[in-house]
Amino acid sequence: MSGLFIVFEGIDGSGKSTQARLLAEWFRERGYNVLLTKEPTDTSLGKFIREVVVRGSLIDGSKLSYEAEALLFAADRAEHVRKVIKPALDEGKVVICDRYFYSSLAYQWARGLDLEWLMKINEFAIRPNLAILLDLPTRESLKRIRARANISEFDKLLDLQKKVRQNYLKLAEMFPEMKIINAMNSIEDVHRDIVALVEHELL
Amino acid sequence: MSGLFIVFEGIDGSGKSTQARLLAEWFRERGYNVLLTKEPTDTSLGKFIREVVVRGSLIDGSKLSYEAEALLFAADRAEHVRKVIKPALDEGKVVICDRYFYSSLAYQWARGLDLEWLMKINEFAIRPNLAILLDLPTRESLKRIRARANISEFDKLLDLQKKVRQNYLKLAEMFPEMKIINAMNSIEDVHRDIVALVEHELL
Repeated sequence: MSGLFIVFEGIDGSGKSTQARLLAEWFRERGYNVLLTKEPTDTSLGKFIREVVVRGSLIDGSKLSYEAEALLFAADRAEHVRKVIKPALDEGKVVICDRYFYSSLAYQWARGLDLEWLMKINEFAIRPNLAILLDLPTRESLKRIRARANISEFDKLLDLQKKVRQNYLKLAEMFPEMKIINAMNSIEDVHRDIVALVEHELL
Repeated sequence: MSGLFIVFEGIDGSGKSTQARLLAEWFRERGYNVLLTKEPTDTSLGKFIREVVVRGSLIDGSKLSYEAEALLFAADRAEHVRKVIKPALDEGKVVICDRYFYSSLAYQWARGLDLEWLMKINEFAIRPNLAILLDLPTRESLKRIRARANISEFDKLLDLQKKVRQNYLKLAEMFPEMKIINAMNSIEDVHRDIVALVEHELL
């Protein structure tokens, strides 16, 4: 594989989508062939996942079981890796992905699932060259999320944010490719820090 | 858990559904509270799985990747175990299930996935008290399947049957709860053999 694979991670409201877009533009301006993508994907499986995670259990109206949720996210990721990410890397593209398997680890681990099991079910996932963790205090992320229109679907995640943030910081100690960026600063300053990191680590 | 959990396994055309129904009737006639169920389930997730496995990849018209397939089946199973099988066993019911995690092992292993990984992603699945393997030669199963109306969706599986049968026989050596029944005999004879096995092993 001759491409570059960069992933954005962080709790809701940390600015992942914005910064992924800005970094994609930065690479494109420099003549790179860029694929900007995200998880869950926009395939029918990704849509199905978003639906059931919001709607809850398929059987009795209770919440979807956490194992089923983790396995669905992993299934969507398997298709994404095999059919989108790997072919693009093989073509030498810069692949920038908004959320990846670290999200599954951070969130599902926070729900009480076994970290080792979560890593195992995601074992097929190609490790990126760089995983950028946009870190910010939970109270700041809650403030940003509250400003969003589609607050309803994120509401249930809010109490998890603190645990998820701590999990992300633990993952950054476990995975050498994960680097922490302070996401409290302005969009422009965070983008500048990310570019400096990318230039230092990859170019 | 005070119930009894019995699973039917075997290649397509081995008579699992028929024998599961006959065994359920046999238990009911003896006053047991029986839950007859199957995998993939009839939930929207089970339906989604049947669709994508037949239709192929969600992204580019190619086949769904085998990892994604295995993870989807496991997700459906996780909901089935947590929301249907375990509660029924807790109520003391006899749960009879047409296909279970052994199917995932036998089929996905035949497709080249790692058996240890398949066992790991299905780790949450409660082990049944008895797994009945209806074994018959591949040429006989092909003959039976050809007689079915919905042959089109099974066509792609036919070349796998031989490998799957061998995998099932290997699984029977690995899992002490799995017992082999010769499925070449008449429906009545096979049912009689199953009842004898159940009485010997469980009652």
